[in-house]
Amino acid sequence: MELLSSSKAFGGSQRVYRHDSAACACPMTFAIYLPHQIEDGPVPLLWYLSGLTCTHQNVMDKGEYRAAAAANGIAIICPDTSPRGEGVPDEPQNWQFGSGAGFYLDATQEPYAKNYRMETYIRDELPDLVSRHFPVDMTRQGIFGHSMGGHGAITLALKNPQRYASVSAFAPIAQPSTAGWSRPAFEKYLGTDERAWRPYDATLLIADGHRLRDLLVDQGTADGFLDEGLRPQLLEVACAAAGIPLELQMRDGYDHSYNFISTFMAQHVAWHAQRLVKG
Amino acid sequence: MELLSSSKAFGGSQRVYRHDSAACACPMTFAIYLPHQIEDGPVPLLWYLSGLTCTHQNVMDKGEYRAAAAANGIAIICPDTSPRGEGVPDEPQNWQFGSGAGFYLDATQEPYAKNYRMETYIRDELPDLVSRHFPVDMTRQGIFGHSMGGHGAITLALKNPQRYASVSAFAPIAQPSTAGWSRPAFEKYLGTDERAWRPYDATLLIADGHRLRDLLVDQGTADGFLDEGLRPQLLEVACAAAGIPLELQMRDGYDHSYNFISTFMAQHVAWHAQRLVKG
Repeated sequence: MELLSSSKAFGGSQRVYRHDSAACACPMTFAIYLPHQIEDGPVPLLWYLSGLTCTHQNVMDKGEYRAAAAANGIAIICPDTSPRGEGVPDEPQNWQFGSGAGFYLDATQEPYAKNYRMETYIRDELPDLVSRHFPVDMTRQGIFGHSMGGHGAITLALKNPQRYASVSAFAPIAQPSTAGWSRPAFEKYLGTDERAWRPYDATLLIADGHRLRDLLVDQGTADGFLDEGLRPQLLEVACAAAGIPLELQMRDGYDHSYNFISTFMAQHVAWHAQRLVKG
Repeated sequence: MELLSSSKAFGGSQRVYRHDSAACACPMTFAIYLPHQIEDGPVPLLWYLSGLTCTHQNVMDKGEYRAAAAANGIAIICPDTSPRGEGVPDEPQNWQFGSGAGFYLDATQEPYAKNYRMETYIRDELPDLVSRHFPVDMTRQGIFGHSMGGHGAITLALKNPQRYASVSAFAPIAQPSTAGWSRPAFEKYLGTDERAWRPYDATLLIADGHRLRDLLVDQGTADGFLDEGLRPQLLEVACAAAGIPLELQMRDGYDHSYNFISTFMAQHVAWHAQRLVKG
């Protein structure tokens, strides 16, 4: 694991590392913020999964999460959104597929199955790496994210309820299996048999019996992707039918950008802190 | 004036505009954050001047100023750091001169005198434009900035004490007339007669009798530019000799990046708010 940068922020340390990923068969980069409380012992670990086109860096630069992480004594890790680099198949002109668009799934179709294994990377490889290098308390993990990453957070939490004690999302894609911007990617990663898509669709996972203790979602009403791509009402219906307590906050006038995310970041970190620090 | 973007953030509006600048003889871009309090009447206006290599965008993305601006009801304007574009003379390989390195001065030497007039732009043209387009209270203005921009803020405040009711700086260049990274720029912009440099050097302005009511400066101890380029001790000596109350905070382990700036941003905005909102 190679330290690419380290910079003091809000009393803690914002770092970026690169490592050779076995899951993705390429070097992967991630950011991790370690609050000063880590000097006194292990701290909870909160995963932030980013959206389409992002790397680890976008939320690190614009997410404004460090003040809240420091105030609550929580480490926040921000992985990349896909494998990248020479030898990784990609469609450079397509922002909804390939680099920056891993959808937190394990591809089964060629030529993507070798590298596009983001579920295994986020669920198995990166936690193992992080737990060996940092004094984080792996019994107290939460997960959240934005858009594609908000959906990724919800699906990972649904499938690993013992792992993540808290989950929230900013403007998550509610049902990627029926959304125009994700269906072509699912077909290329997972094949045309849509039964194989169910483990990567939050609403279908809920329909199939997976559960969360509770869920916080913030969604801007001026988000240009709201009606076609995000559709929080589908999540609302699924959670209501399953008895999952969903706190869905519709935020008047907010768009899909980091201005929206940063505005509500402190409230999300506090949501996780209630479940990870005090809970 | 052309609106390039507008996005809701912390209840207010983060906007970016472009306009044709007479002072700089080129189009100029600036960012302005308007807090929600502006709907109830004019709000104070705080100027943030950025450092070498930056545009209006760096602090907009990474400065984390919107939460504090919203909490205090202050508009924050972030201008560019130099003229730019075709026809503007530049040294593209030199990050300490030309584009991104205007040093907030009015050049007198050819071929720079036509465009590099950042003092006139920040002091006269942009305030005039802003006052005509936004309900900001021009009788309540403050100014701060980082590095080259921290120094620019101090010099503008020294020369215009009636204009700016508050001034602070992150890691300002204390004495550019004797620092290796600014002397070549001063020579090209202002000529070899160093008497012409005095109005653009904070310590020399103080020596020449200019005064501030008070001054807040934060400086990281792990800043790689501390000893050669920044030298806050020179500002400390100048302020002590002149009886200017300087609150110089040496911040253990912080570097020159936006991780440092964002950590202490709320404290700086509060410093200005005390003098602009309540004062």
